[in-house]
This record gives sequence, C-alpha cells and structure tokens, in this order.
Amino acid sequence: MTAPLRLGVAGLGTVGVGVVRIVRSQAALLSARTGRDIQIAAVSARDADKDRGVNLGSYDWESDPVALAKREDVDVFVELMGGTDGPAKDATEAAIDAGKDVVTANKAMLAIHGQALAERAEAAGRMIRFEAAVAGGIPVIKALTEGLAANEITRVMGVMNGTCNYILTRMENAGLPYDKVFQEASDLGYLEADPNLDVGGIDAGHKLALLSSIAFGTKPDFNGIELEGIHRITIDDIRQAADMGYRIKLLGVAQRTGRGLEQRMQPCLVPDTSPLGQLEGGTNMIVIEGNAVEQIVLRGPGAGEGPTASAVMGDVCDLARGFRLPTFGQPATTLMDAPSARAVLPAPYYLRMALLDKPGALAKIATILGNAGVSIDRMRQYGHSDSTAPVLFVTHKTTRAALDEALAEMEKTDVIASPPVALRIESV
Amino acid sequence: MTAPLRLGVAGLGTVGVGVVRIVRSQAALLSARTGRDIQIAAVSARDADKDRGVNLGSYDWESDPVALAKREDVDVFVELMGGTDGPAKDATEAAIDAGKDVVTANKAMLAIHGQALAERAEAAGRMIRFEAAVAGGIPVIKALTEGLAANEITRVMGVMNGTCNYILTRMENAGLPYDKVFQEASDLGYLEADPNLDVGGIDAGHKLALLSSIAFGTKPDFNGIELEGIHRITIDDIRQAADMGYRIKLLGVAQRTGRGLEQRMQPCLVPDTSPLGQLEGGTNMIVIEGNAVEQIVLRGPGAGEGPTASAVMGDVCDLARGFRLPTFGQPATTLMDAPSARAVLPAPYYLRMALLDKPGALAKIATILGNAGVSIDRMRQYGHSDSTAPVLFVTHKTTRAALDEALAEMEKTDVIASPPVALRIESV
Repeated sequence: MTAPLRLGVAGLGTVGVGVVRIVRSQAALLSARTGRDIQIAAVSARDADKDRGVNLGSYDWESDPVALAKREDVDVFVELMGGTDGPAKDATEAAIDAGKDVVTANKAMLAIHGQALAERAEAAGRMIRFEAAVAGGIPVIKALTEGLAANEITRVMGVMNGTCNYILTRMENAGLPYDKVFQEASDLGYLEADPNLDVGGIDAGHKLALLSSIAFGTKPDFNGIELEGIHRITIDDIRQAADMGYRIKLLGVAQRTGRGLEQRMQPCLVPDTSPLGQLEGGTNMIVIEGNAVEQIVLRGPGAGEGPTASAVMGDVCDLARGFRLPTFGQPATTLMDAPSARAVLPAPYYLRMALLDKPGALAKIATILGNAGVSIDRMRQYGHSDSTAPVLFVTHKTTRAALDEALAEMEKTDVIASPPVALRIESV
Repeated sequence: MTAPLRLGVAGLGTVGVGVVRIVRSQAALLSARTGRDIQIAAVSARDADKDRGVNLGSYDWESDPVALAKREDVDVFVELMGGTDGPAKDATEAAIDAGKDVVTANKAMLAIHGQALAERAEAAGRMIRFEAAVAGGIPVIKALTEGLAANEITRVMGVMNGTCNYILTRMENAGLPYDKVFQEASDLGYLEADPNLDVGGIDAGHKLALLSSIAFGTKPDFNGIELEGIHRITIDDIRQAADMGYRIKLLGVAQRTGRGLEQRMQPCLVPDTSPLGQLEGGTNMIVIEGNAVEQIVLRGPGAGEGPTASAVMGDVCDLARGFRLPTFGQPATTLMDAPSARAVLPAPYYLRMALLDKPGALAKIATILGNAGVSIDRMRQYGHSDSTAPVLFVTHKTTRAALDEALAEMEKTDVIASPPVALRIESV
C-alpha cells in the first residue's frame, strides 16, 4: 500500500467537523476504496478550546492556517474557512506554493480568484478541487468535468441556494409573507452572516460562475452574471404564479449564445409540474444539457454537515487515487474570456406592479408595452385596499431588451406606485 | 502533449456509431479537456459494407474482434458488441491479456463474468470501465465509485430499464393493455432481440448487480437478485394503483441488512408524487442513499446513441487523463461474498387475484391471510363479466415471508382462478 495521504484541515465549522468525523469513522472503507490510508495531520481553527463534539485530541493544532498549509507533514490542504479573501486565500496560495494539493468548499474565493488560483496551481503542478463548493453533496463538478467530458454543454441551470428555496417554498406552503419567513430562516440559522449572500443571490451566483467555467471552458466570471435576489418576491407573486401553474424559484441559467456567455441568477417562474418546480425546501437541483447526453438532472442536499463533508472527502479520495486534472477541467491558461451577454432568447415574462388609482393609468401602461413591441397574453387587476392597484401582466414571448425599454418608460410616468417586478417564465 | 490515446472499437451498432461520431466531431474539445488527442485506430463489426451514416473510411477494419483487441496500435479496447459470452468476452479477455484497458457498455457480460474479468484485469494492471452499462447517459457509476466514495452506501434503487418504464407509462397514459403496448414497443424497436431481457427484468437486474457491487463492496451477484418481470401487470393493476395514489414501476432496490445483501428487481407501487413515481417513458432514475450524503437522485436518458456514447466517451476521457481505479471501486480480490437475503423489512403489499365465483371464496382467502398474520388495510371486489371475480387487497405492513406463506396456502384452495399478483408498496 502507498504511503498515507495526510490532510491539513483549516476551519472546523460544520463542514470541517463533518470531514473529521468521516476520516475517523470510515478509515477502513476509505483505505479499501482508495488503496491508501487517509489521515489528518493537523487542524486549524479560531478557537482551540471550543467543544465541537468530535475528538480532535490526536491532531496537531495550528493557530495560523498559513502555517498549517506549509507543514511538511501535510499533503492536501483542506480549506473550509470560507471568505473571498483573507486567511482562506492566503493559506490556499501558501499551500500551492508549498507543493500541496488543495480541496476547498469556498465558492466565493473561487468565483472571484479562481482563475488566478488555478493558474498558480497548474504552474506548480498542483490541483484545486472544489466539489463541495457547488450544490453540497451532489457530485455535479465531477459529473460535468469528467462524466460528461465528451459533451459540448449547451445549458446548465438549477436551484443552487437551499436557503432561498426554503424561503420561497415555505412562503407558499404556509402562506406567509417574505419578511416573516426570512426571520424564521434567520432564527433557524439557515442564513449566512451577511444574509444578502443568500437572498441577494450572490452565493448562488458564485456557484453558477464555477459551473459556467467548467461547462463552457471560460474563465469564471461572477461579475458577468445578471444577478437578482428574492427579496422583492411577495406572497401575492407566489399565489398568482401558482394560479397559473408555476412556482417561483431562484434559478441559475448559463448558456452560450452567438453573442457570448449568458449567465443569469434570478427569480423565475417554472412550471409546477417540472422537476425544478417540484423542488421543496433546502434541496438543490442541477440540470445539465449536452449535445450527446441530452439532459441529466441531479438532485440532493445543498448543504449540511454530512452532504458537504461527503463532497470534500470525494475530492480527497480522488487525490488519494492519484487522479490529476486541471481545476476547471481544462488548463486554466486555455480558458476563454467570453463576453457576457444578456438573455437574447425571448421568453414570456410575469410583470407585477402597483398603479396609482388614477383614470387612464392602466391604459398608459398597456400603451407603453405595446409601443415597445411587448404583447400581453394575460392581464389581471385585483382587489386593493389603499390608493394603489396591484396589476399583473403575463406577456407573450419578448426579449429582455424590449421589456427593459418598456420598464424604463413606465418609470417615467406618474402612474406607477413602485418599480415593477419582472420575472422571466423559463422553459425547463 | 502526451501521445494520442488510440481506440479499437468493436461493434458498430447505435452506440458504436455514436462513439465514432463524438471522436470525429469533438476532437478539439476532447483534447483540450484531456490533454491528449483521442483517435480511433481500428474498428470491427459483422458487416463491413453496411452504410452506418458515418465516415469509417480512415479506420482499419478487423473482421475478428479478438484480433482488434490485440492490435499493437490500440491502447483502449471499446467493447460495444454485447452478449454475455462469445466474442464480447473473448475479445475483452484478449484485450486485457494484451495489456489494453477496456471500456464496455456490456452489462450482461459484467453481471455474470465481472468478478473474473475484474480479477484478470487487475492482475494485469489494466482497467475495465463500464459507465455506459448502467442507466445510459447518467454518470452513476462515477457518482457512486468516486463522488460518493467516502460514504457507506445504505440503499441504491431506481428505474433502470427504459423500455419497461415506457410500457408501463404508455399503458397508463393511453389506457391500453399490456399486450398491445408490448407490440407497439416491439414495432418501435425498443425491445431487445430477446424481449424477456427487457420485460423479464433481466437487463435491469444486470444493472442492479453492478450497482450493488460498487455500492456495497460485494462480488456482482446477478443470481442473488429476486427477479420479476412486468408481463403480469394489467391495465387494471395500473388503474387500481393510480386510484390509490401510486404508480407501478419496475424498481430495483439493493440494500445491506443484517442478514446479507438484499437485491430486488420487481414491479412495485411507488407514490405518484415521488420523483420515481413521476418518471415517464424511457427515462432512467437512480436514487443513492449514503450515511453522509443522505439522498442523491440522478435522472437522465437510459439509452440511445448520444447518451450511451457520452458515457462510453466519459470513460475514455478518464483513461486519457490517466485515472486508474479498480473495476468495482476497490480491488476485485477484496470484494466480499455477501449471502443473498430476501426482503426482511416489512412493507405493505398490493395483492390482486381472480376468485372463482363460489360461495365462501372470499372468506377463505381472508382467513388464509389472517392465519399467516397478514392484516388487510383495504379490500375491493370489482365488477366482472365471467365466472371469476377480480379481488384486490392492500395489506398492512407485512414480511414477504408471511405473504409467501399465505400465497402458498391460497394456491392449495379451489377458489383461485389464477396465481395472485403481489406487488410491494415501496417507500421511496
């Protein structure tokens, strides 16, 4: 048997503890499957005295993750601290420079600095693996990078933030308003320290940037994502959508078009009978479409100790088996700079707005839509108790550009009580 | 760049042609992703003159697949002929002995001879990869063997034969009897040359045997599978099940219990709201449950040129990248002989039978069930036009052993017109 593979684990939150638990409890299984013993050489976390419910006594402690990353007795640096910059990035760079492979769950760091880190790692002949960074326990990075490697990927989409999906499904199932469910999610500890990472779509956007890169051979481009959170979705939107046979999901979509790489992370309407539409609670789902494979759907827990640690340890097993491949599936220096493109394919849209209770208000809006070439499939004005009237349109297929033109015109009128909410109705 | 990886492709049916198409049309993508050119050195098929709609002119032809397998200029032998024994096995053995790696879509050969072939390959330091053998384009072998390698797998289940699922969903959607839909499927070319491979559950059983081996570290044991086909399912069964909120699926289930390895491939009732229940047509779905990852669901096309060739080429890409691992995820010599165990966990059952129109017939049957300790949740006797009365029971949870005892007693009576159909109601 080959020499043991020795891990340095930085960060002992939920995922780090999960990794320790697997290494301790599954030693025989890991060694049977990989042909090597997998050991933890040392760990690092902010508070050495905290009781984490797992025995850490046998491991060396490093207060500085950079020192951990450089240790002679560490083969693989397991980065589970999180954060775009700071210690996570410093320690990852130090690990690469010291000749270690890296396994990380850090989507933010890779979405922003992934290109530079991948180039650095590949120049040093080192690997960065990040299965746990996208969709928790679902082995989607592996499916895309390896299993579907012979496909030209045509579209990747999915629900990648369990907290948002929890909020949206809970609003619908309990008939509760956004603010109340947001508070619940906060009380349950489902939200990131900065909740905007979740409900603003940023966390899901980071994940989409990584999937796009692998799928299309492009540099990770988080800033190229059309990003919109769920905080403007009301219980009325959810009910109106349900009435029409749809559910609202924070949906990520990436595809290559003639104009470049289109990446969107936005609340969308999807048919309530589709697999995406039926996804409840914190579960994630990724849909991958390729020219040969047609469509593959992967579903599983998007977070949590066990599932995320399973993904981290899957990467560790790959390293123990000696699998070597570039971070984003092809050498980082060959990844393309794809211009970011707004959605060009037309789609129907759901439009909700509050009109001031003035004669001719509705006519004004309808005229603006018509002038922009946006034709109306359905319209509904519903009961109201104050001086504004909630109005709902479903358009026929239109381009986002035409719709944006209409929305800009609406803002200039004196009949809109608040900026309209426009949600794409996605065919999935 | 490393030297090209040279394939010898044996079998130019649907899948073989798909492989040729990918190698020819995706050369740049394959080489960008794997760091090597992937080429076809030679091919073999029964009829060299047939027009397969793809340009084969540049490849050497071998009439004998064994000769192809031994060629100096072949690195990877791609076995796409099918068949448990015969040329497929001979050529696979020849390839291993000649120092080639093997990629195959042949579930029958591996389910029966997989243990011997894996031992032979591993003794020679060669690999056998078979992603395409299970669930077509879904990278499920990879997910289980690699992505979830750090999990103790607790259960694997799924719908793995698209033809059976097509037949069952078509019966329900069109309200047609089994025989008629079977004929349709035959006319559409959906059935194997020996249709019993499909509708008898054998093909799906082969796949389950391979999944079990990987999931549980046991030798592939096709003969240990409790196997039952779909040919006794009537449109009445489907309607009665639908009435109660279920769909009938040919469902494979493998799990380890205290008594050994339980493997079943049988028509079962599953809730119509579950992902398995909602699976339509030829699509496959595999559900994997692991101690860390909880539950992962994978869905995709189970057959067809593109999807199956995608899986074959995924394996080829792994080989081009230099990934090495044992056939069943751990060395074949370490795989365990697990005793095969019948289902021990109790479940409710759906029981349908035709009773002869005699006084006391129903009482006799009910008494037999009661004596065996099988209690009845629901019973329904429905309209009939001949001298037999169709009767339906749904039992409370019972063991298969108790049920079999009752079924054996029923056979001894003079009130049963034909052997009862018993279908497990699976919680999924």
